[in-house]
Amino acid sequence: MMLINGKPQTQIAVADRGFQYGDGLFETIEILNNQLVFFEQHLQRLNRGCQRLLLPIINKSLITQEAKQLADHCSQGILKIIITRGSGGRGYRQPQIISPTRVLSRHPFPEYPDSFQQQGVKLRFCQQRLALNPTLAGLKHLNRLEQVLARAEWSDDTVQEGLMLDINDKVIEGTMSNVFFVMKGKLYTPSLKQSGIAGIIRDFVLHTATKLGVETQESHFTKEDLFAADEIFVTNSVIGIWSVQFLEQQSFSKGALTQQLQRELIQYKQQFYENLC
Amino acid sequence: MMLINGKPQTQIAVADRGFQYGDGLFETIEILNNQLVFFEQHLQRLNRGCQRLLLPIINKSLITQEAKQLADHCSQGILKIIITRGSGGRGYRQPQIISPTRVLSRHPFPEYPDSFQQQGVKLRFCQQRLALNPTLAGLKHLNRLEQVLARAEWSDDTVQEGLMLDINDKVIEGTMSNVFFVMKGKLYTPSLKQSGIAGIIRDFVLHTATKLGVETQESHFTKEDLFAADEIFVTNSVIGIWSVQFLEQQSFSKGALTQQLQRELIQYKQQFYENLC
Repeated sequence: MMLINGKPQTQIAVADRGFQYGDGLFETIEILNNQLVFFEQHLQRLNRGCQRLLLPIINKSLITQEAKQLADHCSQGILKIIITRGSGGRGYRQPQIISPTRVLSRHPFPEYPDSFQQQGVKLRFCQQRLALNPTLAGLKHLNRLEQVLARAEWSDDTVQEGLMLDINDKVIEGTMSNVFFVMKGKLYTPSLKQSGIAGIIRDFVLHTATKLGVETQESHFTKEDLFAADEIFVTNSVIGIWSVQFLEQQSFSKGALTQQLQRELIQYKQQFYENLC
Repeated sequence: MMLINGKPQTQIAVADRGFQYGDGLFETIEILNNQLVFFEQHLQRLNRGCQRLLLPIINKSLITQEAKQLADHCSQGILKIIITRGSGGRGYRQPQIISPTRVLSRHPFPEYPDSFQQQGVKLRFCQQRLALNPTLAGLKHLNRLEQVLARAEWSDDTVQEGLMLDINDKVIEGTMSNVFFVMKGKLYTPSLKQSGIAGIIRDFVLHTATKLGVETQESHFTKEDLFAADEIFVTNSVIGIWSVQFLEQQSFSKGALTQQLQRELIQYKQQFYENLC
């Protein structure tokens, strides 16, 4: 199911600047029990992206109406929203009047084994580096070649995620997730001021940890910092929180804080079942 | 006029990875007298890009046939070629069997005043920085948000191009062009090993200068190096070689080497008229 500017379609103009230049943004949202998880937060991030890319702010009521239409009769799924600068302009120059393209599409929820949540996953480091670009850092924009090339580095299905470093050898994130580690009870995650995507679950984890009285720090970390960690986990809107069982050859035990944060996320999602009762 | 995988169409699947992730490459080629200028060089660059992005090499005879079809009955125009990874795969992960999408489209030649060639143009510096990414440097790939944001910095039509610096304050290129400068008879242009697009006319200029006995150097340069130059010019496949008359507020005279290189490029293009006689 897909709506392009509100109409059921599956094709886009070649002239669309999303296709020509990756000139746009996207969001990936979990659908649970016909409802959209963290929907408000996703829309807020989308709007922050629109501001940074000089796109008109989104029509919230319109996009909400279409999103609800796609979430209806769906027990679990994914809603993807893409906003582009639309067609027009001359070369890279944007048109004087921007008519954004709005694509909402529903996709099946990936079937991950329960063990990914419970026992944890295996991670590797990627060779492909993330460039530093403060203007674009944090945004979920459509220029994603670095992630595509990083994800192409392995086809071993026992490895669920690859961690990416920036060009200064600092760990930034996974190809599709944010990364956290715990060390002596304190929670650490890479700063995303120069690179990376600031995930919605990343925000949830940071806020929840603070609420629980856990000290958090966003900073620059190396591979060695991760290898020295007590616990590691990765997050995104689809996987939630995956504990990390292996980083390369080194094993990690699933720690108390990872489990507590997982429980907090599950508890948060309970509202989507209760709302319907 | 547009051909998508050989068929006259103007729309692409939303699922195409070109739209989803900017997962592809493009070329912009001048059409002159029904012929394609520097066509072989453009195809070579496209293939180098395919290798770097792990895309199958292009079907040269097929793409040549389609390009010639679009160039036919066109005295002057632009042929744009886009190659993407096609649809499929799961998230950033590419599909096991890649079926690239091939889009060839013909566009009118931009109507630039003769004065841009003859007297020169006005340039500014952009605030938007270029990230450093050796893996993607040199390629004409579809992740072009930096150029879009740089080009959005000015709407003054007396300024024809903006120069972009990398995050280390080194001049790399224009938003749509490569940049050269002359100092005491020697020709300089920024190294593109970490950022930027290696233009076809850039190659032509470097080779021609060497052939003419002019010493050339690709290195790292600052704004100050450009302000101290005797001559500056910018190049791409559509504009050819534009002499720079103003960089910000500082004026430059059109020097002997710029003029000589312009004559060499015009002479090279003479073959496209003579071939038809």
